[in-house]
Amino acid sequence: MPDRAAIDTTIDIYMAAFSDNDADAWLSCWAIDGWTEDPVGSPRRHGHDALREFFEESHSLTDSVELRPAGLRIVVGDEAVFTMHARPTMGDTTYKLDIIDHMTFDEAGKITTLRAFFDPTTLAPAGG
Amino acid sequence: MPDRAAIDTTIDIYMAAFSDNDADAWLSCWAIDGWTEDPVGSPRRHGHDALREFFEESHSLTDSVELRPAGLRIVVGDEAVFTMHARPTMGDTTYKLDIIDHMTFDEAGKITTLRAFFDPTTLAPAGG
Repeated sequence: MPDRAAIDTTIDIYMAAFSDNDADAWLSCWAIDGWTEDPVGSPRRHGHDALREFFEESHSLTDSVELRPAGLRIVVGDEAVFTMHARPTMGDTTYKLDIIDHMTFDEAGKITTLRAFFDPTTLAPAGG
Repeated sequence: MPDRAAIDTTIDIYMAAFSDNDADAWLSCWAIDGWTEDPVGSPRRHGHDALREFFEESHSLTDSVELRPAGLRIVVGDEAVFTMHARPTMGDTTYKLDIIDHMTFDEAGKITTLRAFFDPTTLAPAGG
């Protein structure tokens, strides 16, 4: 069982590296055979090559995108669920999208599976 | 695929019936062969007899317990994840516990699986 600190560190790096458009740091969060289903219902991307492709696709859609914690992170055993906002910027406008991620982790605290729950119809200007 | 309205209705009844200590209404939310893993990591309870047993155990621990939505409900296909607070009352004190539930649903919008993520060490007096 990975320890809580290792899981927290992985989630923190995952979010920061995604926001910083740092593919290598983001890939360092993943187990070699990890997969993502992002969003839930889309085909899963298995392994680092497919994950890098997903990362680059995600960042090609916007000028930038920040992942910001939204208040709740629950870690139980080798699993975590947490709330966040994706804040993509396109041109002059920043949008906000509520997301709940579910992750599982290996012994080293690397991500083995990720499922990202969100409803794209809830994307709205972030305001503020 | 169940429709969104059927899923929303089931979740609403699930939370209200749990809070009202109404086992029959709560069981009406479940598929015949549904199971719950509550909390995540505990043995799964399969089918209505085991679910009723779980319901009665849960209510035997406190004078009352309210489930209150905590702001985020995401439905994707036949799955839902949502945040809530459990608010158990013991004697003069009401406590609060953050929970994220993950549910899947059958064609009729009945719950086929439920996994409840929470960290019991975060239970704290609700205040206010």
